[in-house]
Amino acid sequence: MRFGVCYYPEQWPQERWPTDAAMMAEAGLELVRVAEFAWSSYEPGRGRFEFGWLDQALDVLAAHDLGIVMCTPTATPPVWLVRERPEVLSVGPDGRRRAYGSRRHTCVTAPAYREEAARVVDVLLDRYADHPAIVGWQVDNEPGNHDSARCWCDACQAAFGTWLEDRFDTVDALNEAWGTAFWSMTYPDFAAVRLPVPTVTSHNPSLLLAHRQFASRQTLDFLRNQFQQIESRVTADVMLTTNFYGEDTAVDQRAASRLGGHAAVDSYPHGPRDPMITAYHLDLTHWAPGGDGGAWVMEQQPGPINWTPDNPPVPDGQVRVWTWQVALHGFDALLYFRWRPARGGQEMYHSGLLRHDGTPRAALAEVGDTIRELRGSGRVPPPAPSVALLQSYDDAWAIEVNPHRRGLTHRDLQLGAYVAARRLGLDVAIVDPEDDLTPYDWILAPALHVATEKRVAALVNAINRGSRLVIGPRSLVVDRHGKISDRPLPHGLTDLLGARVDEMLSQTEPLTVEPWGTPAGVWTDVLEVAGGEVVATYAGGTSLDGRPAIVRSGNLVYVGCSDAGTWTRFLAGVTDRVPRPDHQEVFERTGGVGARSWRATIDHRTLDVAITLR
Amino acid sequence: MRFGVCYYPEQWPQERWPTDAAMMAEAGLELVRVAEFAWSSYEPGRGRFEFGWLDQALDVLAAHDLGIVMCTPTATPPVWLVRERPEVLSVGPDGRRRAYGSRRHTCVTAPAYREEAARVVDVLLDRYADHPAIVGWQVDNEPGNHDSARCWCDACQAAFGTWLEDRFDTVDALNEAWGTAFWSMTYPDFAAVRLPVPTVTSHNPSLLLAHRQFASRQTLDFLRNQFQQIESRVTADVMLTTNFYGEDTAVDQRAASRLGGHAAVDSYPHGPRDPMITAYHLDLTHWAPGGDGGAWVMEQQPGPINWTPDNPPVPDGQVRVWTWQVALHGFDALLYFRWRPARGGQEMYHSGLLRHDGTPRAALAEVGDTIRELRGSGRVPPPAPSVALLQSYDDAWAIEVNPHRRGLTHRDLQLGAYVAARRLGLDVAIVDPEDDLTPYDWILAPALHVATEKRVAALVNAINRGSRLVIGPRSLVVDRHGKISDRPLPHGLTDLLGARVDEMLSQTEPLTVEPWGTPAGVWTDVLEVAGGEVVATYAGGTSLDGRPAIVRSGNLVYVGCSDAGTWTRFLAGVTDRVPRPDHQEVFERTGGVGARSWRATIDHRTLDVAITLR
Amino acid sequence: MRFGVCYYPEQWPQERWPTDAAMMAEAGLELVRVAEFAWSSYEPGRGRFEFGWLDQALDVLAAHDLGIVMCTPTATPPVWLVRERPEVLSVGPDGRRRAYGSRRHTCVTAPAYREEAARVVDVLLDRYADHPAIVGWQVDNEPGNHDSARCWCDACQAAFGTWLEDRFDTVDALNEAWGTAFWSMTYPDFAAVRLPVPTVTSHNPSLLLAHRQFASRQTLDFLRNQFQQIESRVTADVMLTTNFYGEDTAVDQRAASRLGGHAAVDSYPHGPRDPMITAYHLDLTHWAPGGDGGAWVMEQQPGPINWTPDNPPVPDGQVRVWTWQVALHGFDALLYFRWRPARGGQEMYHSGLLRHDGTPRAALAEVGDTIRELRGSGRVPPPAPSVALLQSYDDAWAIEVNPHRRGLTHRDLQLGAYVAARRLGLDVAIVDPEDDLTPYDWILAPALHVATEKRVAALVNAINRGSRLVIGPRSLVVDRHGKISDRPLPHGLTDLLGARVDEMLSQTEPLTVEPWGTPAGVWTDVLEVAGGEVVATYAGGTSLDGRPAIVRSGNLVYVGCSDAGTWTRFLAGVTDRVPRPDHQEVFERTGGVGARSWRATIDHRTLDVAITLR
Repeated sequence: MRFGVCYYPEQWPQERWPTDAAMMAEAGLELVRVAEFAWSSYEPGRGRFEFGWLDQALDVLAAHDLGIVMCTPTATPPVWLVRERPEVLSVGPDGRRRAYGSRRHTCVTAPAYREEAARVVDVLLDRYADHPAIVGWQVDNEPGNHDSARCWCDACQAAFGTWLEDRFDTVDALNEAWGTAFWSMTYPDFAAVRLPVPTVTSHNPSLLLAHRQFASRQTLDFLRNQFQQIESRVTADVMLTTNFYGEDTAVDQRAASRLGGHAAVDSYPHGPRDPMITAYHLDLTHWAPGGDGGAWVMEQQPGPINWTPDNPPVPDGQVRVWTWQVALHGFDALLYFRWRPARGGQEMYHSGLLRHDGTPRAALAEVGDTIRELRGSGRVPPPAPSVALLQSYDDAWAIEVNPHRRGLTHRDLQLGAYVAARRLGLDVAIVDPEDDLTPYDWILAPALHVATEKRVAALVNAINRGSRLVIGPRSLVVDRHGKISDRPLPHGLTDLLGARVDEMLSQTEPLTVEPWGTPAGVWTDVLEVAGGEVVATYAGGTSLDGRPAIVRSGNLVYVGCSDAGTWTRFLAGVTDRVPRPDHQEVFERTGGVGARSWRATIDHRTLDVAITLR
Repeated sequence: MRFGVCYYPEQWPQERWPTDAAMMAEAGLELVRVAEFAWSSYEPGRGRFEFGWLDQALDVLAAHDLGIVMCTPTATPPVWLVRERPEVLSVGPDGRRRAYGSRRHTCVTAPAYREEAARVVDVLLDRYADHPAIVGWQVDNEPGNHDSARCWCDACQAAFGTWLEDRFDTVDALNEAWGTAFWSMTYPDFAAVRLPVPTVTSHNPSLLLAHRQFASRQTLDFLRNQFQQIESRVTADVMLTTNFYGEDTAVDQRAASRLGGHAAVDSYPHGPRDPMITAYHLDLTHWAPGGDGGAWVMEQQPGPINWTPDNPPVPDGQVRVWTWQVALHGFDALLYFRWRPARGGQEMYHSGLLRHDGTPRAALAEVGDTIRELRGSGRVPPPAPSVALLQSYDDAWAIEVNPHRRGLTHRDLQLGAYVAARRLGLDVAIVDPEDDLTPYDWILAPALHVATEKRVAALVNAINRGSRLVIGPRSLVVDRHGKISDRPLPHGLTDLLGARVDEMLSQTEPLTVEPWGTPAGVWTDVLEVAGGEVVATYAGGTSLDGRPAIVRSGNLVYVGCSDAGTWTRFLAGVTDRVPRPDHQEVFERTGGVGARSWRATIDHRTLDVAITLR
Repeated sequence: MRFGVCYYPEQWPQERWPTDAAMMAEAGLELVRVAEFAWSSYEPGRGRFEFGWLDQALDVLAAHDLGIVMCTPTATPPVWLVRERPEVLSVGPDGRRRAYGSRRHTCVTAPAYREEAARVVDVLLDRYADHPAIVGWQVDNEPGNHDSARCWCDACQAAFGTWLEDRFDTVDALNEAWGTAFWSMTYPDFAAVRLPVPTVTSHNPSLLLAHRQFASRQTLDFLRNQFQQIESRVTADVMLTTNFYGEDTAVDQRAASRLGGHAAVDSYPHGPRDPMITAYHLDLTHWAPGGDGGAWVMEQQPGPINWTPDNPPVPDGQVRVWTWQVALHGFDALLYFRWRPARGGQEMYHSGLLRHDGTPRAALAEVGDTIRELRGSGRVPPPAPSVALLQSYDDAWAIEVNPHRRGLTHRDLQLGAYVAARRLGLDVAIVDPEDDLTPYDWILAPALHVATEKRVAALVNAINRGSRLVIGPRSLVVDRHGKISDRPLPHGLTDLLGARVDEMLSQTEPLTVEPWGTPAGVWTDVLEVAGGEVVATYAGGTSLDGRPAIVRSGNLVYVGCSDAGTWTRFLAGVTDRVPRPDHQEVFERTGGVGARSWRATIDHRTLDVAITLR
């Protein structure tokens, strides 16, 4: 595993660079990401390139054997470009062009911005494609962040129409697929379908869903263009990726890794404030499909940040634990964000490894010690899980646009099963529902909301081959356009299950699940049994008392509720494992020294890390 | 009492319709409301009418002896119409036309929309005015819902000016009436009075009040046009109504029933989440003035809904209780919304009597059983109350625009007295303050904010004829333009009362009222007595301790505070009745079998319904 | 000390005026403020002046020996003016002109509004400059209130560019000062710097800070113009001021008093709901620099108000306490707002000394009694404090634009030290950080965020001359453009302190400070000591336990945390004084009768006021 740091030489005097490079090397860092937001620094006016400083910075870093990750600068175009071609700016739902002045204010669909992006990437490649110190390229920065993927500009409106036409062929097919007979919304032609903007009350969820699907697709196209430009110019050993903020759902992050070959995530545990959620996003990235593997944390929080409402302190030892957590989730590389905090700009209170004055924070020593500790602790065996968790952004978006409970997210549901598995010490592979699922003993599908024939077939095939499938509430309910099935639910699996969903509830009272007394959670399906075995029932003093909550039939289990407590108790029973507290992560691996069993434990509360070999 | 259901044949295959009709009849349903949102289904392009499917649907329903309520479709115009004549869309306070894509996005004032509405209603009447299965017509759907009554389009601005000119004759009269000398807002002419849009700080409440009065009047005009079109074409036995959502205050719902002859309400108890509030809205509809009587619940919640923040389950037995509650409040008909939930669109998680797959929910059997139970239980004696609660939207709007406490509503104040009466087992007639009040023993006026000479005269007349009048805090304070009286308060009644208001407070500390120790509530008037009898005083450890809270003089009582607890204790004493818990409703009626006394009790917590005859 | 009232004769019949004037005089009032919002009443159309009523009102008041404070009317232009010259309206961040209909909707920069303001002030002066009853002039009303100082109109954009160019000379200097290399925001020229409007994510804080500095400067220019007009026409004994709402930070209130000569504040204790905050704003006004001294409370709350979310009652005796508080903080005059509440308009529920019907509220008698009590109690010795609290709007704005904790304000930090001093019975002078600080024994600087060389020099000079300086967390961090220093912090004082800041934290866990166990508060700096004496350390079970919280070196103390509890305990120790509860204010003065010591105590909970002489 390699370690590095994000560095912005353009923010500091040239005289300082050698000191910085020496300190980085001294700390054991090997990688430096540069030039992510440097467009205006190397092209201060159209075609007026000033690469001298960047050449010099790369030379200084290379002189200390630091490998460079070069970035394309498309997250932050210069002022002059926006002034010259305002059509590169995205448009908000209010119909107004986004103002210049922050970042991600451009439209990934606008032909003008695609042209400018291609131009600047070509210039960068002309200069740096063959630079010997460059070990990887990062395309853009946090695509979709700040809810920036959706845009309401004329180019997007036109592209949306074309996309719909490609998808549905006839507007009658769209009307049927979206159920527009409801509220008299039958579209006479594709041009009548407008990008959804605020209206008197809510929009058809199918339109909202299509907008999300479209916006993700457009971003992937934008990224693909850059990947292809770079791939055609660099050697095969150069790493290509883009860095997502894990919590964003605007773009299909896993699909993006198919384009670039590597997956990368920016990990700021103070965003979600729950180490299990950090773990989930790490696994989401690590198990990203396609490509040639090898996930990176491209930005790792090294201390207090500036962009949450409160921004609390980071205790001594925390950066070490965060680093270990990344390592144990199987990552190839980790870069801390950032070397030294900028003196000005939007993130001036976001800490780095140094202070503003250039002296080291305690975190720098902690990082150095942790790198040495990790290198000294032997190889971390990679995860090779027998448990799969199904994941797809189609489910996430379908739930986002119609959650039946304000604020409920797809991730909330995913975490019910993920946390259960992690508390039982099980490594989890996160895989696509249409993938081959037969390699896994257990397939967990807590939020498999969308039913497609291909999904159902993959699930049935896995069950038939001996995998055990556990599906959660509202499984296989809507089609890929968000329309509810007209067949008994779960769509396609009721016969196998020997049960069907009676009611799909959004639970507000604190129901429990018997025989365990565990909480039921928000989404709560009540089942009607016809042959299946009732494993657990609801309790709590309502008319649902005694109604089936969990039904099993052979290798297929339907867990009607979403709370992690119930998932944990159920899975503990069937796997015969004992759950740990939710502030502990256990990693049980084989393949350690001498093929003995290998176990690591992180306690996120006490900040202890322990490795035991048996 | 008749029962029915809302049905959308356009959302389902024609082959299914006979099954649905048979199932409806089997459950004991007699009425079916159709075509409410079907405009785009029968006029997919201008003048291109496709009524074949609707003819066929009516035939199928009629074949099962189901009576039809036909709807006008003006809540949801088709896309093509909006594209062709965008001026039919309403304009928001931001000056932008409402986007197409939900419902109620049209302006009731816009000449273009009035023209289109008249056109489509004429076409509907040409085809269906004489249809033998049609027993009633519903005009529009939930007028004013989603805060849609107010519009800021040019047509509204012009009509507002005309309306003001009609009302005030001279702009000097308007300036005087609105007190525009405050903050230098004297208007030089009517054209200078702009519809209120967001500004640096608040608007003159008189302007806000006028906007509400105007918006309601425009909606009533829009409805009246349709009522008149239909009345001129159908026989007198055909029911005419429009269905309001009870909680909306944007349109004077009681005035609308004068136009159509029947009052109707859509009853979703999960909106307010308090059975007493549901009861209040049922009574508000049942006692709507004018017309030939006979109130309907046009839409009744039959299970979980989709549009509240959480949407909790509906226990077994709840639909029966809701149905009984409607029956006991004296309604002539009740239609469940809806037969089968749509597979797509904005309300796909709103339940019906069937599931999405067409099989029955348990609610269908519960509905059938309840209909049989009600039919078997003998005639429910109608309410014939001796208690009147005064109600007017003028009071509601005057309080809305200037509540002196964020979030306080007119209904909050009304409920103080209404809940008291209901807990004492008293049926309540809801009547207009300018009506003849002499028939009632008790007149409760907890939120009679507006003082007019006619109101004062009606009150004095009733008192003189022996009625007892109980008025609440801030009674008779402002005139119909929202300007505060310059006479002692309550305006016009201080001599009769032998007291006057000293201070009108918005209470934040938990004051109580002695001798009962009951809570005082939010609006709290302190009285200064000159001859009246002090019935109760304030306590709680502030300088208000011992100051008069309730003052009585003969048949006139001033209750200075708003909380239902104090109203209940006071009314219990003077009526010599014992209050029930607030989750129980008791209906004591005469006129049952053999003129014996008849009593029904609903327990909204245990879901018990009991009827006893003595 | 003189007392008065705000009066709006234009809202009442002329016949009433003599009664009002007689009642005012009878109550002991001497001053009446008039014509603040009367523009449309004396100029109902351009150039059509109707001053007769105002002449008459002044005569009536003068006949009762009431001194007049005449107001300029520029907070509320008439409708006709706005219609004629819409460019006088300010523009919001949404690019739309503010709507007419409230107040402060005009742009202080717009040439058209400056012209109209100058015109109407000239007319007023032509008529009233020499009026013998006029003792003072108030310019405008609550400048900057309702967040009205910032405007996004074209005139402001142009003036902002000019202001920046004056400030930075070259755009390179601006880029360097604002750190625009961050996020690629390098500006090619001054015209490229747009006034900040909402964007995808946050703006550069330096831009936001500049906007605030600019907006304040523009408002001061607007006020200066009026002051100069008036000064050139009236005699030197006429008081000139403008009345600020104390809590507003949009305009440098202290700088404004330099322009007019007197400082004035509008004091509504129910705004902040904390008597210590009211005290702080009184002192902020009393100690306003420049001019010839003599602060006024131009509007004093006399009972319940209408503009907070709840508007609670005001107990008997409260107005007396508020009046005493103003007197004890050294004010020269106090005017109650208002004589009689308007019957219409935005503030109709804001109480006055009379009721709406013209009869007196109990407050009128309380006011009369209090005036007599104050006059009978002998001269209140003026404060002559030995403690200075440093204050500057530059610090306030720098913290506002980048608080590192949502909702934290500069005032929150100031109050930590201010409350500590008040609880210890110490009068506090509020002074500018660049002033001569040597007269003070103690200099408290709890929120001295901005470091300038002049500030550092003033501090060092005071320390060297024997003053003791106590600075708070994040002292001397950013320069005047909001950019963080690249030197050890506190900038310029680390050598003197024998310590430097290690981490600047935004604390969420309830840390305490030992040896006292007092709370640490939100902003929490951890210090690294090199020679300084550790006075207190952090505790609370985190990795900060035992780290230095307060460090002292000679006359210089760094208090790393912000909570008033810790400031109180620290200052109690070093001053050897005992803290009072925070609902008591003690005023210890010399200079009373016979040079004995003089002490006044207000208990804001029991509403007792006690004066003792020894």
